[in-house]
Amino acid sequence: MAQQVTGQAGQPGGALNVVGRRGPNIDAIDRVTGQAKYTADIELPGMLTARILRSPHAHARVVRIDTSKAEALGGVLSVITYRDAPKVMIWGSRQYVLNDRVRFAGEAVAAVAAVDADTAARALKLISVEYEPLPFVLDPEAALAAGAPQLFEDGNLEGQPRVVNRGDIEQGLKESDHVIARTYRCPTMWSGSLEPHAVVAQWENDRVTLWCSTQSPFRVHANMVAQLGLPDSHIRIIASYVGGGFGTKSAPHVDETIAALLARKARRPVSLRYSREEEILDSNTRFEVKMYIRMGVKKDMTLHALDIRAFINQGAYHTRLGGLGNHATHLYNVPHLRTVQNRVHTNVPNTGPTRGVGDPQECFGLDSAIDEIAVEMGWDPMAFRLKNIKRNGDPIPRAAGGAEDGRLVTQALDRCIEAGASRIEWTRRNQAPNTAQAGPIRRGMGMACTERTGGGGLSGAQVKVFLDGSVIVFYSSTDIGTGSRTTLSMIAAEVLGIPLKSFRTVAGDTEAAPWDGGSQGNRTLQGTGRAVEAAARDALRQILAGAAPLLKATPEELELVGGSIRVKTETARTMTLQQVMERRGRSVVGDGSIAQGQQGTDVERTSAAHFVELDVDTETGKVTVIKYVSVHDVGRPINVTIVENQIEGGTIQGLALTRSEEMRFDPRNGRTLNANFLDLMPPTMMDFDPRAIEAVIIPNEGLAGPFGGKGLGENPCHPGMAAVANAIYNATGIRLREVPFTRGAILRALNDQRPAASRTA
Amino acid sequence: MAQQVTGQAGQPGGALNVVGRRGPNIDAIDRVTGQAKYTADIELPGMLTARILRSPHAHARVVRIDTSKAEALGGVLSVITYRDAPKVMIWGSRQYVLNDRVRFAGEAVAAVAAVDADTAARALKLISVEYEPLPFVLDPEAALAAGAPQLFEDGNLEGQPRVVNRGDIEQGLKESDHVIARTYRCPTMWSGSLEPHAVVAQWENDRVTLWCSTQSPFRVHANMVAQLGLPDSHIRIIASYVGGGFGTKSAPHVDETIAALLARKARRPVSLRYSREEEILDSNTRFEVKMYIRMGVKKDMTLHALDIRAFINQGAYHTRLGGLGNHATHLYNVPHLRTVQNRVHTNVPNTGPTRGVGDPQECFGLDSAIDEIAVEMGWDPMAFRLKNIKRNGDPIPRAAGGAEDGRLVTQALDRCIEAGASRIEWTRRNQAPNTAQAGPIRRGMGMACTERTGGGGLSGAQVKVFLDGSVIVFYSSTDIGTGSRTTLSMIAAEVLGIPLKSFRTVAGDTEAAPWDGGSQGNRTLQGTGRAVEAAARDALRQILAGAAPLLKATPEELELVGGSIRVKTETARTMTLQQVMERRGRSVVGDGSIAQGQQGTDVERTSAAHFVELDVDTETGKVTVIKYVSVHDVGRPINVTIVENQIEGGTIQGLALTRSEEMRFDPRNGRTLNANFLDLMPPTMMDFDPRAIEAVIIPNEGLAGPFGGKGLGENPCHPGMAAVANAIYNATGIRLREVPFTRGAILRALNDQRPAASRTA
Repeated sequence: MAQQVTGQAGQPGGALNVVGRRGPNIDAIDRVTGQAKYTADIELPGMLTARILRSPHAHARVVRIDTSKAEALGGVLSVITYRDAPKVMIWGSRQYVLNDRVRFAGEAVAAVAAVDADTAARALKLISVEYEPLPFVLDPEAALAAGAPQLFEDGNLEGQPRVVNRGDIEQGLKESDHVIARTYRCPTMWSGSLEPHAVVAQWENDRVTLWCSTQSPFRVHANMVAQLGLPDSHIRIIASYVGGGFGTKSAPHVDETIAALLARKARRPVSLRYSREEEILDSNTRFEVKMYIRMGVKKDMTLHALDIRAFINQGAYHTRLGGLGNHATHLYNVPHLRTVQNRVHTNVPNTGPTRGVGDPQECFGLDSAIDEIAVEMGWDPMAFRLKNIKRNGDPIPRAAGGAEDGRLVTQALDRCIEAGASRIEWTRRNQAPNTAQAGPIRRGMGMACTERTGGGGLSGAQVKVFLDGSVIVFYSSTDIGTGSRTTLSMIAAEVLGIPLKSFRTVAGDTEAAPWDGGSQGNRTLQGTGRAVEAAARDALRQILAGAAPLLKATPEELELVGGSIRVKTETARTMTLQQVMERRGRSVVGDGSIAQGQQGTDVERTSAAHFVELDVDTETGKVTVIKYVSVHDVGRPINVTIVENQIEGGTIQGLALTRSEEMRFDPRNGRTLNANFLDLMPPTMMDFDPRAIEAVIIPNEGLAGPFGGKGLGENPCHPGMAAVANAIYNATGIRLREVPFTRGAILRALNDQRPAASRTA
Repeated sequence: MAQQVTGQAGQPGGALNVVGRRGPNIDAIDRVTGQAKYTADIELPGMLTARILRSPHAHARVVRIDTSKAEALGGVLSVITYRDAPKVMIWGSRQYVLNDRVRFAGEAVAAVAAVDADTAARALKLISVEYEPLPFVLDPEAALAAGAPQLFEDGNLEGQPRVVNRGDIEQGLKESDHVIARTYRCPTMWSGSLEPHAVVAQWENDRVTLWCSTQSPFRVHANMVAQLGLPDSHIRIIASYVGGGFGTKSAPHVDETIAALLARKARRPVSLRYSREEEILDSNTRFEVKMYIRMGVKKDMTLHALDIRAFINQGAYHTRLGGLGNHATHLYNVPHLRTVQNRVHTNVPNTGPTRGVGDPQECFGLDSAIDEIAVEMGWDPMAFRLKNIKRNGDPIPRAAGGAEDGRLVTQALDRCIEAGASRIEWTRRNQAPNTAQAGPIRRGMGMACTERTGGGGLSGAQVKVFLDGSVIVFYSSTDIGTGSRTTLSMIAAEVLGIPLKSFRTVAGDTEAAPWDGGSQGNRTLQGTGRAVEAAARDALRQILAGAAPLLKATPEELELVGGSIRVKTETARTMTLQQVMERRGRSVVGDGSIAQGQQGTDVERTSAAHFVELDVDTETGKVTVIKYVSVHDVGRPINVTIVENQIEGGTIQGLALTRSEEMRFDPRNGRTLNANFLDLMPPTMMDFDPRAIEAVIIPNEGLAGPFGGKGLGENPCHPGMAAVANAIYNATGIRLREVPFTRGAILRALNDQRPAASRTA
């Protein structure tokens, strides 16, 4: 159930006309009527269908590969192996597109393009590959042991451990009045999207256009430049409509290059669409994290020492180095802190950023430990958090992992906690686990906090105003279902004073729009949104300059309001935008390109507090969410409906991690055992009652984003595991330190909890 | 044979690195390998084929039209008639897309879209139309006579006659020492292109994309906005590669709207491609002009009075009002001048701008009369012209047809004449017609002059510099074979200091590029070129601003040369463009949008003098061009090869008008008798020996265009008819006052010339 915004901090006298309202997505009709063209909808004359041959081995050398029979099959137009692929690592990864060494079961070995899918499938069977199987390893700690199978010449540890050291951790632990040591683990999990990867490649002479399902067209662009050795201007990436991404599409994969190579060899357009199984095996998965946490507190309720030793299972390669978030350094004040992250390669499928990247895992470990130590000290875990969270003015690292501190600004985490406690009625919470209740149902409450950067970086956009005053917003990041077409249009509409109904967008096109970092890491609103704002201001400047002689005023004396240009001090002196544009005789193109980064000492973050009330059925292990309150600081929301939808969707995705989506591997051969939806069990509408979820937006105003907005997309997914684990403890007294919290795990823990005599075998 | 440029006036110390060189078109390989996609190459999934039903009557009412049988035919997905068409006149015309009144034989009456061309053709035969034939008129003077069939309610005369009156024409003629009165006529002629009109329409929801073969995407865009009643931003016109235009594609026609309406009704993409016959009947043709000229001179060799009464046969409608050029007002000084142009509608097919619009016709009349009066006065026609042409500093109307005079600047016509005379060796010319020569061959020389505005107006472009320093130039005018992709890239390369090989272009796209007036009227180089220059300067400014901190200098201290940025005064302090761009991290988009018009009192024009030496075979009437020297002021040429090609191509097109391309109409029914290439006989490579044509560029530098360049495209086509007519006179003594100069016409004139006794019957 959505929660209305109760006010707008810092809003200048209600002067905003578009920003801050509710409203549907401007492309809703296109999407629901099938007019929106996703990559799988692209059809080109003569287009071939591609299929990929994948390794059955978790680790092997390709000794011999014979494609001659496949090439001889009628209807097959190109076959490629590692011999056809560039010896260039994929952008942000250690993987080659095709290689004579495979490091996970499911890795691409060869690919074919044929006149239809059946022919392509038959051709795959005609490719003969002789493998030399190699020993494999699946566990990150085992992979670091002496004698473990080695994936890379420089060992399985990626680079050096990533260490943050503040104060003196051992001294801090010694000084603490109480210390706990706990281990938490999140397994490899699939956090992907409904739309599998898809790409269509079309060459013209020495130029290639790729329609693909990506969050970051310019990252794919950069990879194609490297893979194909072409000038940047010869590669065009188009990701118009994308059916979800959740990080798995935030970086290039093997698919774009395979399609481009097949198309170049076949001299025909090629379409490559992943099956669901391929999508699970060969897109990014959420990396496994094992955290050894030691935490010390003083009797005065201050967090005094925090030590996290983490093993990150990056899988065979990595896509953008995985790691924890910044909860340890950015969320709570703690004088003695050490985090050590070991990023390890194993023979599980490739991992990479998925929603929140390492934040949900870190949040699970840290906010579970917070809860555990508070319980042991007899403190209210909420009061303990409020005592220790960083507040405005507190020192906070200026850069992630950096030693230099700035000062936290525009933080609203205290208000998030207080609002959430009020809504969930935290005072109703069990003082101790609810073990005495009659019947099998145990009810409890839990909470967790999170934070993250709001995103930003390098962004670009263009705003084109046509003669009739209608507008197109061009941007090269994407709308992966987050509503950015709408939000970005609202920003431009607010700046320009042109009604929102006059807007449409062209998204995800590297040729039509300026460079932009893409849609990930909370950055589309905060980064691309600022570029759109700048582009709209540039367009407005040109329009007012054109209107000035017509209205016999200086541009500074004019304003554009409701589609009309008028003299501010004499509002009857007015012309419609269309009149001005037609007198000007040509369209206006506003260009905005900006670089946002940490400047000065102000550090702005975006935070949230989640509260959950749930029932545990102690006979079946079933957990039912009764109420879930997600309270977020999003700065000023641009479109309240979209922000609430983001919060609700992210909350459900976080909840999904508590009960399913674990990828399981066969210890005998390393193959994934559940690369399908039936066994992965991603949540459906039946799993969580949306009416139980309350999205709350805290009135605030940020500094970096457009109109005070802050990036949001990642955060709602972070706190679910910790909040639910804490609530299960509060309900039952069992402490779950490993996700997912399956019925089996809950029943086993309940069983362990009983006096030995009454335990089931 | 091409002629090397002999020097560069005003070139600042040879500082230009790209501009002024020779070189092939940058898209030459795309074009010759078929990679360049013309509209007819566009194929879309589910695309239908459209055909048009055309009127057999030159003038009729559609009394009844029954499409039910066509609609019932399997495979037919949409049928449209005037009932489906908007009651909105086509941009720049008085024509409706489909109407219940037809005004020329060949006018569209209905259209169908079907699964293939055969089905569409069968459907056309199933449409039953009952016409009420109306009386028709083909001759413009007859159309103004009392009782003539009326095409429009307000009569056949379009508006008021267009009159220019300077001095006192009757007084001037009275004061003259010698006066001639002559009549010249150019018939309706076809001056179209090899590629017939083609359009593909595709709807998405309430937006439409049209790939079409147009010179002016934004004119088509404006028409579609009006026809379809959609916001500007919902219509995208793409004219990437265009197979020639010569003005016939400079404005919208019926085809774009018909395709869009059919596609909307069928809910499928529609392709409409004209046959050659349709292209001749229903694109613009060159309008017929009949000129009654009176000319008076004084004994001191000054032109004293000029009276031109012209009848312009606009055909059924018009596309952009037709008329003479500005030779009478802008080429020669003449104190007493009157021109009266009657623009008349008749039932011949629609006319519109074709290369030179009315300039070739006016040039034929005026420069023939100049020759005639000079001969009668015993003057060298060249000396007579040199005495009377406008030179720098002479008064000249500031606007076409305007009363207010400015002063002519950057004119080089005198030097054109002198250079041409030198090359053709004008001194060898017969002093009187060469009637005494032995044998049937008579050799003679003739010349003619022309001038025109260089174009300009409202233009826009973008220049995008990618991370690796490669560049795309975006513009919404087109490359209709004129090499603008290359020329515009050279302009940007010159500004940016980036090698030309790093450039590609996206042309003719209303969504990808800013508003631009299109490619007609000598304007692509001069207008779009200036916009490209501005866009490149904008990009350069951003690049140097980005480089400044890296090179510890101010942007003003830096320059970009040969792909590297360096401190001007310390050229060893340097970084490559790629280094700077990659440090910047994002592409640069430079935007240029400019309005060029007559400002101040300076009037800049572009002029030319053509000289021809030819043989007339008095037994067969065959004319053989021995040498043709085309001397042009193009300001500074951007690409010398392209300029020479333009001059050569235009010269041949002007020569073509001297011998073929007349459209002939059946006086019994008004139908076109020769709507095919066999009968129209456009020239082939066999007709004129390119080695006989010498393109000469006069060193000059203009003010309005980029790097001193002036628009050129129209001019080379102007003087051919007059120069050849004058040369035929010089060779034979016969004076041809009507084009084309067919063998029959020449033999008839020779026959008339002989003493009555020796004439053939």
